[in-house]
Amino acid sequence: MLEPYSLEQLVSEFSSLPGIGKKTARRLAYHLLQKPKQDMERFALRLQEVSEKVHPCVKCRLYTESEYCSICLEREGAKTICVVEKPSDVFPFERSGIYHGLYFVLGGVLSPLDGIGPEQLHLDELVKRVQEENIEELILALGSSPEAESTMLLIDRLVSNLSVKCTRLARGIPMGSDLEFVDEITMLRAFEGRNLL
Amino acid sequence: MLEPYSLEQLVSEFSSLPGIGKKTARRLAYHLLQKPKQDMERFALRLQEVSEKVHPCVKCRLYTESEYCSICLEREGAKTICVVEKPSDVFPFERSGIYHGLYFVLGGVLSPLDGIGPEQLHLDELVKRVQEENIEELILALGSSPEAESTMLLIDRLVSNLSVKCTRLARGIPMGSDLEFVDEITMLRAFEGRNLL
Repeated sequence: MLEPYSLEQLVSEFSSLPGIGKKTARRLAYHLLQKPKQDMERFALRLQEVSEKVHPCVKCRLYTESEYCSICLEREGAKTICVVEKPSDVFPFERSGIYHGLYFVLGGVLSPLDGIGPEQLHLDELVKRVQEENIEELILALGSSPEAESTMLLIDRLVSNLSVKCTRLARGIPMGSDLEFVDEITMLRAFEGRNLL
Repeated sequence: MLEPYSLEQLVSEFSSLPGIGKKTARRLAYHLLQKPKQDMERFALRLQEVSEKVHPCVKCRLYTESEYCSICLEREGAKTICVVEKPSDVFPFERSGIYHGLYFVLGGVLSPLDGIGPEQLHLDELVKRVQEENIEELILALGSSPEAESTMLLIDRLVSNLSVKCTRLARGIPMGSDLEFVDEITMLRAFEGRNLL
């Protein structure tokens, strides 16, 4: 074969990443080979370190190297939990700077066909937190797929006898979008949710 | 900080790769975190293995795990060397199946501003191979930048007193391209190089 075995294996690791095809994977592997040996060793070390040190926060399931993530520590006592599907969904909230409350990562949304039921989503933990931490508001920020919708409805039902209100993000026209090209569902939601000037 | 330190470091490793920005880098790192721990450990291992095992072939400088690459071994005695800039330039030749000769990887082209002179390009090794292996043809496949052109001219001069002929790839209209959009230089080369039907 044209490529040594170990190099072929590395190319296939890169091509298993999302959005990276065989050709790009090869380009990345060959790029690393052209750099000093230490660069590749450091990359390997970083992967090893993350795999050893990083795990979900025991409270909110965001990634951390300790028992609790920095957000759970810094904002202890906050009365709002924002419920997201995956850890990286937290970034737009933190970038905007508008939210200073706690988070909870579900790890997915209800999807019976993929074997994801209520048990897989750590919903018991969420309900327990709402009770123990006297949470006043749950912001359900779960996207707009039918699966996400039914997950939000389920959570709303699970906490219905607790004194917590469930909210969801407003749906409407995004910034900078041309009205001409707005899709029907978005327009429907934006029209229904119209406000007084 | 929102991200644990080790994860931040991994994201910055990914974003140092060509064509991968900060956001994509984060997506890749978080993707790996959602997979079983072994996946990330295997990735680290593959990088480590390539960094330990893979090095340039002593004859042609293609990547190999042994002293000589498989092409140098399988095609020993061939009388043609195709001179390329970097190892991955070999793939289109091998994919096309039209070439069954040897290779030589320069590792770059002349570029005085970047400190790449004749010494950095292993030109002595190339000339030595032409003499010792009685090479009959050098196919200079170095792209069309001014730097590549002057590198080809230099190689041609270095072997001018040896009985080897230097050739270059034909330049012209690529397959499937619309004549209307062909650039001036390509058209010039294609016109100059026109053949009898």
